[in-house]
Amino acid sequence: MTKTVQKQAATWIWFPGDFEIRLHEKMSAKRTARGVAYPAYWRLDRHYSNVKFRYTYELEQEEEITIAAEGVFSLYLDGRDNYRANRSTVKLPAGRHEIMVSVFNDTEVPALYITGSTIRTGSDWEVTSYQNDWLSAGSWTFDSPAQKPSAFRLAVTPQEPASVDIRDGYPLIDFGKETFGYLRFHNVTGNGEVRIYYGESMAEALSPDKCVTLDVFNTQEAAAKEQDGIYTLEDGKAFRYVWIHADPGVTWERVSMLYEYVPVTYRSSFECSDNKLNEIYKISLYTLHLNTREFFLDGIKRDRWVWSGDAYQAFLMNYYSFFDLDVTRRTLVALRGKDPLAMHQNTIVDYSLYWFVSLYDYYLYTGDLAFIRQNYERAVSLMAFCLKQRNEEGFIEGRPQDWVFVDWADLTNTGAVSTLQILLARGLEAMRAFAALMDDEAAAAAYGDLAEELKRKTLQLFWDDEKGGLLHHRVDGETKPTLTKHANMFAMTYGYLSEEQRASVVRSVMLNPEVPRIRTPYMRFHELAVLCESGEHDVVRQEMLSYWGGMMDLGATSFWEEYDPSLADDRHYGMYDMPFGKSLCHAWGAGPIYLIGKYYLGITPSSPAYETYRIKPYLGGLQHMKGTVPIGEGQITVEMDLSTIHVETTSGSGVLSFSSKNRPECADGEIRHIEGIDYELAIEAGKRYSITYQA
Amino acid sequence: MTKTVQKQAATWIWFPGDFEIRLHEKMSAKRTARGVAYPAYWRLDRHYSNVKFRYTYELEQEEEITIAAEGVFSLYLDGRDNYRANRSTVKLPAGRHEIMVSVFNDTEVPALYITGSTIRTGSDWEVTSYQNDWLSAGSWTFDSPAQKPSAFRLAVTPQEPASVDIRDGYPLIDFGKETFGYLRFHNVTGNGEVRIYYGESMAEALSPDKCVTLDVFNTQEAAAKEQDGIYTLEDGKAFRYVWIHADPGVTWERVSMLYEYVPVTYRSSFECSDNKLNEIYKISLYTLHLNTREFFLDGIKRDRWVWSGDAYQAFLMNYYSFFDLDVTRRTLVALRGKDPLAMHQNTIVDYSLYWFVSLYDYYLYTGDLAFIRQNYERAVSLMAFCLKQRNEEGFIEGRPQDWVFVDWADLTNTGAVSTLQILLARGLEAMRAFAALMDDEAAAAAYGDLAEELKRKTLQLFWDDEKGGLLHHRVDGETKPTLTKHANMFAMTYGYLSEEQRASVVRSVMLNPEVPRIRTPYMRFHELAVLCESGEHDVVRQEMLSYWGGMMDLGATSFWEEYDPSLADDRHYGMYDMPFGKSLCHAWGAGPIYLIGKYYLGITPSSPAYETYRIKPYLGGLQHMKGTVPIGEGQITVEMDLSTIHVETTSGSGVLSFSSKNRPECADGEIRHIEGIDYELAIEAGKRYSITYQA
Repeated sequence: MTKTVQKQAATWIWFPGDFEIRLHEKMSAKRTARGVAYPAYWRLDRHYSNVKFRYTYELEQEEEITIAAEGVFSLYLDGRDNYRANRSTVKLPAGRHEIMVSVFNDTEVPALYITGSTIRTGSDWEVTSYQNDWLSAGSWTFDSPAQKPSAFRLAVTPQEPASVDIRDGYPLIDFGKETFGYLRFHNVTGNGEVRIYYGESMAEALSPDKCVTLDVFNTQEAAAKEQDGIYTLEDGKAFRYVWIHADPGVTWERVSMLYEYVPVTYRSSFECSDNKLNEIYKISLYTLHLNTREFFLDGIKRDRWVWSGDAYQAFLMNYYSFFDLDVTRRTLVALRGKDPLAMHQNTIVDYSLYWFVSLYDYYLYTGDLAFIRQNYERAVSLMAFCLKQRNEEGFIEGRPQDWVFVDWADLTNTGAVSTLQILLARGLEAMRAFAALMDDEAAAAAYGDLAEELKRKTLQLFWDDEKGGLLHHRVDGETKPTLTKHANMFAMTYGYLSEEQRASVVRSVMLNPEVPRIRTPYMRFHELAVLCESGEHDVVRQEMLSYWGGMMDLGATSFWEEYDPSLADDRHYGMYDMPFGKSLCHAWGAGPIYLIGKYYLGITPSSPAYETYRIKPYLGGLQHMKGTVPIGEGQITVEMDLSTIHVETTSGSGVLSFSSKNRPECADGEIRHIEGIDYELAIEAGKRYSITYQA
Repeated sequence: MTKTVQKQAATWIWFPGDFEIRLHEKMSAKRTARGVAYPAYWRLDRHYSNVKFRYTYELEQEEEITIAAEGVFSLYLDGRDNYRANRSTVKLPAGRHEIMVSVFNDTEVPALYITGSTIRTGSDWEVTSYQNDWLSAGSWTFDSPAQKPSAFRLAVTPQEPASVDIRDGYPLIDFGKETFGYLRFHNVTGNGEVRIYYGESMAEALSPDKCVTLDVFNTQEAAAKEQDGIYTLEDGKAFRYVWIHADPGVTWERVSMLYEYVPVTYRSSFECSDNKLNEIYKISLYTLHLNTREFFLDGIKRDRWVWSGDAYQAFLMNYYSFFDLDVTRRTLVALRGKDPLAMHQNTIVDYSLYWFVSLYDYYLYTGDLAFIRQNYERAVSLMAFCLKQRNEEGFIEGRPQDWVFVDWADLTNTGAVSTLQILLARGLEAMRAFAALMDDEAAAAAYGDLAEELKRKTLQLFWDDEKGGLLHHRVDGETKPTLTKHANMFAMTYGYLSEEQRASVVRSVMLNPEVPRIRTPYMRFHELAVLCESGEHDVVRQEMLSYWGGMMDLGATSFWEEYDPSLADDRHYGMYDMPFGKSLCHAWGAGPIYLIGKYYLGITPSSPAYETYRIKPYLGGLQHMKGTVPIGEGQITVEMDLSTIHVETTSGSGVLSFSSKNRPECADGEIRHIEGIDYELAIEAGKRYSITYQA
């Protein structure tokens, strides 16, 4: 490619995806269990250590460029690779020439930053990993020589405790709510050891033998590292409480923390007549925010890992709150990793399949075609990997080395599990869309055919008329009689069922008390979404109040990995055979963000990037509500009570759908009567619409 | 696996292959061009940063173990992964338990060293990269906690210059012969810069603007790094001469060097009636030794890279000299690297194919089945990659991104090149053998069928009766009329030609002055081998004396990358458009080691590991010769003049073949008359056989 003039600021560039993959490698080794390393138990992919950048320029006069690199670099012109330079300034000759810069770095990602009056590194440079793969260079916001990609870290800000108490002679510090960051000791004196027991719950902090995370330091080593009298611990931790045991004679002035976070903008809002629901919404936002980090994590205490199924939901919540696409893209790239594919994402079959759906959602909510293009080949090869694992009937199955997760529940996931077939079908539909976007009509048709065939076969072989839903699994060509909610929920959500089947699923599966209950917020997310899709907003509101409200009643300041109201006292904190094994700040706990934004405020994109959208607000038992949802750069605001609806949007165009017992009125547009009590109003950006109606 | 008692010393263990792959990554970035980095231009594979070791023990009483790791480790028992330890000593409970140790290291290879009174790390531990791949752990000679695999470096020993001269006021230091190592300055005084120009030739050292490698240091920074008054330069270099320019006022007591090398044993020997040939043999050994390093390199100045085609020959030379299997194995593992395969080894199609032949040779010379087993899957996938690149006629071709090398010569390598078909057939035969060793008879048969079919088709479509040999290439279904030696040589060597075809090749191709001459020692290796196979020892001896002797006459102390007797003076040193671009110490220059060992001393294995062998000595115009060749642990010694032959071997059993004009006699065994003047004598280990005969 050629550029004669290029005026944007220079940015650091690298092999696309490698920044994310390296960051993921580092973050996946951050988890500890009682002070001991606990890295993720899957292959951690690695950046290419050896890459080469290229750029063709045309200059009327010679130009001096300055060069910074992460790694050892050498620059040469026009393929003269025996004549290399590694000086930090180089004078480029006038005329048309090709710059090549090889960079080698076996610890951090090889990266390059070149700036001259016209020649500057950016995404219009290309890079190869020496595999016949000249690609557009990866870049981000690192736009000065000092801002090295390898030094990337999240923002930090000091925070003070809410209270300090003394327990058994040792200070118990409460930061008031779940948080994440680095504990700080101010003006430590005395010689000895300081032992810190972290707790997401008070009970955990007060259990030195059982708390999941802890720290120990010696005051002398702390003294060597302190700055302005402050010793900041090296590793960030998730906690609300810390209980600190120090050797006799060791004292400090006070303890504070450095809160670490992504500086997202809270772009959504929700306020309604039910204060508890308002609180649930706020705590959900905070729960999601804490887990919105280098990547979307499952939980900030545990596992601190990037799980595709968890991220699938975090992505959706994010579209209804921060709309932070950087974390989203980083997460999608890190999850896919590199070839060869030997195991599924996070070792879980369903988690590979969620990745396609997540990537499709990303496109639907953002319209970012460039990102789809960048990931298309990796999507193709992941799908090929998944399709290879179909049995004789064409159903995907877990291999002996695979984990078929579905949910934390008493599930027997042998043979072909119906949920996986639904997810694979949805993944194939996503691939059909991607292929079409890449103008590969043949591939699109092939993926489409596979999707249709799989849906047809799944409905044919898993649907049970008597039980009124999709059965759970099929072993050796025989569908087993177990009925679970999972496949039914996904089939509902993805629109794979007939009107009649949908009604049957709601009645015979979703609202049937004999079908095993769902205990994780992870699957409650889908369960409640499906109930909303079926107009059961009132039920869902009550479920939110009792389930998420139940955690709040137990003092939750962020939402949990799992909640079983039947448990007593501190037994809530146990999981995985550990008394404090449960994560009390789990991204999938923040589902109400999505439920409220999508099903109460009622906002969904109808076409990529919210060029068109549907607004279908439901009070669902509330007296009034008001809220905002981001739609790319812009936003949609909805305000509703029992007799008025106000809608305002900043971009795109959409349709407001609502029901009214009387004939609704609007001075700002023409209301269309659909049928019965259903009405629609076309919405244009930049106008405020006020409707009077009767709930 | 279970062990109750295990008494060998503990060694560091790692994921198999990763030590070699990491070392290769580092070494591949060592080349410089005039002080600037010049890393290899192919993908450099990387070690897994995240691995887990396991071992099942059974103890009658508890045992304390001490643990060292390269990287962050955590140990747990019996799958209880929430209960981890990272202390350097751990008490293991009695009974039967499974130890798991996860190690994460994103800079060097994760490695583990555990020692207790009975429990010790070794190759009987297993390791996984979390890809469903529990494998026997890799290990080597690192058997103390301090001897970390990442700290591995070759041996060094001080060496002094042969002479110091002053040129243009600056010292020109001659180390007497080609060498490799770190220059050392003793007792430097004064402030300023020191510039060092290295030369494999004197002309190169005396060309500051054109020499390929150079160094610059500042005396102050040198002072900070000196030990006992000696400043040792950081990077090793290849050179015989150095010309040192220092700023005024900078002085030193003397300059020496730290020679860096693999402490191989020179296990072969050769002495004959021709002193020049004796010298050629010695310089060949030295040339090979210099290139026998972390891996077999192409050349020590340039490229300092690991090239499969070059290594193929170095391996063979090594079997006839040092028999160093460590370097061999490291090289084979590094060359194969990791999946996915996108490009050929070193980007060259022929180089992927040589790898199979090299691995087969390794098995033939060593009988090391464990190593074949360790590499079998990677051989299978490399072959699958190669087979995918066959055209409609079933011939392998280079893709647009591939390099079809064959030789440095004016070759047009478009379409299907016959040399590649011969190499692929040989590769398939190797795969047939490996599959049989793995007891996969079906795969062995399939590879065998492919090999036979390819040989048949190649002979059918490339053989030209009129020209009397295999033609060079076939484009779009049409064999081009170009005749070259290359394919014919390989077809001869691998026994793919009929008696009649062989005779025709020798006459019409090999000894035909109208067929383009071969200028590289690389292909002279094969050319001369083929002539020996055809009994042309006298021709080959003369060729050795003129070709290798020609380099010696020009002052060579090691053999070159290329030699063209027609060039004048310093023009010998040029290559690649650089006046000193040629490597004057190139592994492939050491071919006489192989020619002499295999075709004059006449020693070849007839079955793996030299269990049986053939000894077929030829004087080829010499008056007498005496030599030794290693055969695994043992060796074969042959002594021959015009009337006596003495043979002695230390292991295995073999057959001595020779020709005699009279009826030969031997008191130590029964000579069998074959036909005409050909005789054989069965040889057993541990006996000395003396034969009288007439040459």
